[in-house]
Amino acid sequence: MRILDIITKKRDGFALSELEINFLIHAYTHDEIPDYQMTAWLMAVFLRSMTIEETAALTMAMALSGNMVDLSAVPGIKVDKHSTGGVADTTTLILAPMVAAAGVPVAKMSGRGLGFTGGTIDKLESIPGFKTTLSQPEFIHILKKHNLSVIGQSADIAPADGKMYALRDVTATVESIPLIASSIMSKKIAAGADKILLDVKVGHGAFMKKMEDAIKLAETMVHIGQLVGRETRAVLSSMDEPLGRAVGNSLEVEEAIDVLDGRGEPALRHVCLILGANMLNMAGVAPDVTAGYEMLSNLIDNKVALHKFAEFITAQGGTGDIINHRDLLPQSKLKIPVMSIAQGFVQKIDAGQIGYAAMRLGAGREYKTQTIDLSVGLILQCRIGDFIEKNQPIAMIYVNDKTHLAQVTTLILNAITIGSENVAKTKLILGTVDKSGFKAM
Amino acid sequence: MRILDIITKKRDGFALSELEINFLIHAYTHDEIPDYQMTAWLMAVFLRSMTIEETAALTMAMALSGNMVDLSAVPGIKVDKHSTGGVADTTTLILAPMVAAAGVPVAKMSGRGLGFTGGTIDKLESIPGFKTTLSQPEFIHILKKHNLSVIGQSADIAPADGKMYALRDVTATVESIPLIASSIMSKKIAAGADKILLDVKVGHGAFMKKMEDAIKLAETMVHIGQLVGRETRAVLSSMDEPLGRAVGNSLEVEEAIDVLDGRGEPALRHVCLILGANMLNMAGVAPDVTAGYEMLSNLIDNKVALHKFAEFITAQGGTGDIINHRDLLPQSKLKIPVMSIAQGFVQKIDAGQIGYAAMRLGAGREYKTQTIDLSVGLILQCRIGDFIEKNQPIAMIYVNDKTHLAQVTTLILNAITIGSENVAKTKLILGTVDKSGFKAM
Repeated sequence: MRILDIITKKRDGFALSELEINFLIHAYTHDEIPDYQMTAWLMAVFLRSMTIEETAALTMAMALSGNMVDLSAVPGIKVDKHSTGGVADTTTLILAPMVAAAGVPVAKMSGRGLGFTGGTIDKLESIPGFKTTLSQPEFIHILKKHNLSVIGQSADIAPADGKMYALRDVTATVESIPLIASSIMSKKIAAGADKILLDVKVGHGAFMKKMEDAIKLAETMVHIGQLVGRETRAVLSSMDEPLGRAVGNSLEVEEAIDVLDGRGEPALRHVCLILGANMLNMAGVAPDVTAGYEMLSNLIDNKVALHKFAEFITAQGGTGDIINHRDLLPQSKLKIPVMSIAQGFVQKIDAGQIGYAAMRLGAGREYKTQTIDLSVGLILQCRIGDFIEKNQPIAMIYVNDKTHLAQVTTLILNAITIGSENVAKTKLILGTVDKSGFKAM
Repeated sequence: MRILDIITKKRDGFALSELEINFLIHAYTHDEIPDYQMTAWLMAVFLRSMTIEETAALTMAMALSGNMVDLSAVPGIKVDKHSTGGVADTTTLILAPMVAAAGVPVAKMSGRGLGFTGGTIDKLESIPGFKTTLSQPEFIHILKKHNLSVIGQSADIAPADGKMYALRDVTATVESIPLIASSIMSKKIAAGADKILLDVKVGHGAFMKKMEDAIKLAETMVHIGQLVGRETRAVLSSMDEPLGRAVGNSLEVEEAIDVLDGRGEPALRHVCLILGANMLNMAGVAPDVTAGYEMLSNLIDNKVALHKFAEFITAQGGTGDIINHRDLLPQSKLKIPVMSIAQGFVQKIDAGQIGYAAMRLGAGREYKTQTIDLSVGLILQCRIGDFIEKNQPIAMIYVNDKTHLAQVTTLILNAITIGSENVAKTKLILGTVDKSGFKAM
């Protein structure tokens, strides 16, 4: 088998065999083929695409390139959740304790934020004492005892994907559905859950701008799951505006507490309940999504989910008491409102711009090794469809100094479009994809 | 300007501006962008193609990446000839003295052989004393005095093309018409001739297997010539069987002497006269191709072309007397015939296989730094359409030892298909392409 023949075959539009894909990924992971040959293959895949069988083979080859987590010691059906990335997307922090409280084990490996999207690990690290690095036995022990553990993804999970992603990022080969689908699924499969629920974001603040692309991506991942024997379901949710109100690490932990405490942004709560209900249904704990939604709503109302959150934080070395004392979380020195310069209805909130504004404040990273400030960020005070008076506060900025204040204020004002037209609220849940295909909602 | 944007633009099928192409080629030549980004761009070009304006811009960017030869000190219209590469293709050795004898200056930079195709510089180096490396003033001096000089292509001619070609070779991005056309044209333009005649080979022994691809390549190069102000014309000639009879360096020099002496293979002579007549016509020395053909035939008949060859060899330090004493050329120790194992008509002679057989004998290179034996090779003793008796010699092998003899004999026998069907002789000249388009012949 020769790498040049594999590139040529894909370049000319033919499907590769599982053996060819395994050979390629194994050789690349072990530095046996140079980046330029891998790039030739990646660009050929980008432009010629791959069959679902090739995509599934690539997924498994990448998953098997490193450690495959074994969760068999943890009883019950483990359902993992993955979001394709959004702004003010605090779902994991809310979902994980809620679902664990309902009796479904949640074993999660999460990432850090990059660019305008945040990361669950950064958010958790804003909780004093919280450890995001645990040994495999500690992870399993906490999981068995509390039904919930969240750790940072180790470098040994699908290392082929990590190496390929870094190359895709600098060769304009990121936005390919088979490459995105196999990248996500390889990590989820290596992380060891029995079933996978995907939250595919759609809209101008998401990676997938168009509904048809989001459906295609979701279908591809669900189909991969079928082919490799891990039941996968996808919920398509809107990222036409930020999901919650808070953007910034400790601010998002506070917002998660709000939702778990029965308050907080209804849009964020609704999306979390839909995602959680699907997880309960997939785990066999709820007979259908409606029943799951009801179960989880009760766990919020009776504070069981909130206390599960505190229990989980304490188990991982953190200050669980933040659920009662918010001021135990890092607090910014300054709190500066952004006032509307016009009157009218909110037409559009550019989630990407809002995420970028928070990053400029120091809440996010422009490059991987950047240090972030866990206390800063912003809280939106309007949603699409709201009527806003001139000089009404539309956002609150949380900072420790005024360095980027003028720039960020401008970014926020530009991100929020106000006009005379009375527009409808954003439809949050757009549909689901399971093995029987796409269903609009 | 960012390289990632340039890759993305081409990946998505848009045409790049001249500025973008110049930026890319300049950065790559100066090692400012890594091979993997150049590969991403090359594969995108392979699959998305380029407009003729982009191809012309790429050609000029590559030509200008190194030294641009200035031939203005040499009086007259300089016409360069380039062949896309074949087997037993001794045309340059015959054409150059013939055309120079007709009064058209021939300033040629030639290459070495690689794989199954030979190179003019290797062939000339089989002539005792012949120098293929001259200083620029020596080159110009010989040109002005004898109307003819042939030297090896320096590394400083279109270095961007050299670097890109090496990368294309290992990333499956060779067989792209815009990339092939710009590669050839960039070197010809940098070499300084006023006009360019291309010999585009077509058939199973050529790079272009199909007539439509050959026409497309020829049209692209002629169009580039028009856009950059260097009149270009292409002759499409058959490589369905080896052009001459000799394959091997000194053997091909002998065959060139044969043709210049009025003997030798009629097919090779005819193709040389057609190519030469076009050069005379482009240089304004012959009113049309028919008149040029007549002029050159006379220069063979009266031995003027043959003596020009001797004069040129002597001028470059070689033994001009080889035209009278063939044994001054390197001679192999052994001469072994290959006998036909069947009776019938020659249906097919696989030029690629014949070239490969000569390479195995030591006449050619498998890799660039390999040493070759200038005395070895083979001479075919049949052409397509000939009737062959069983046990009749169909080729003669010239070697210094018997190491690869059995293998080469098998290769030759397999390359020559003999059958009962009476087939027509190969049509040698298939058409021409000039600014008014393709004309079949």
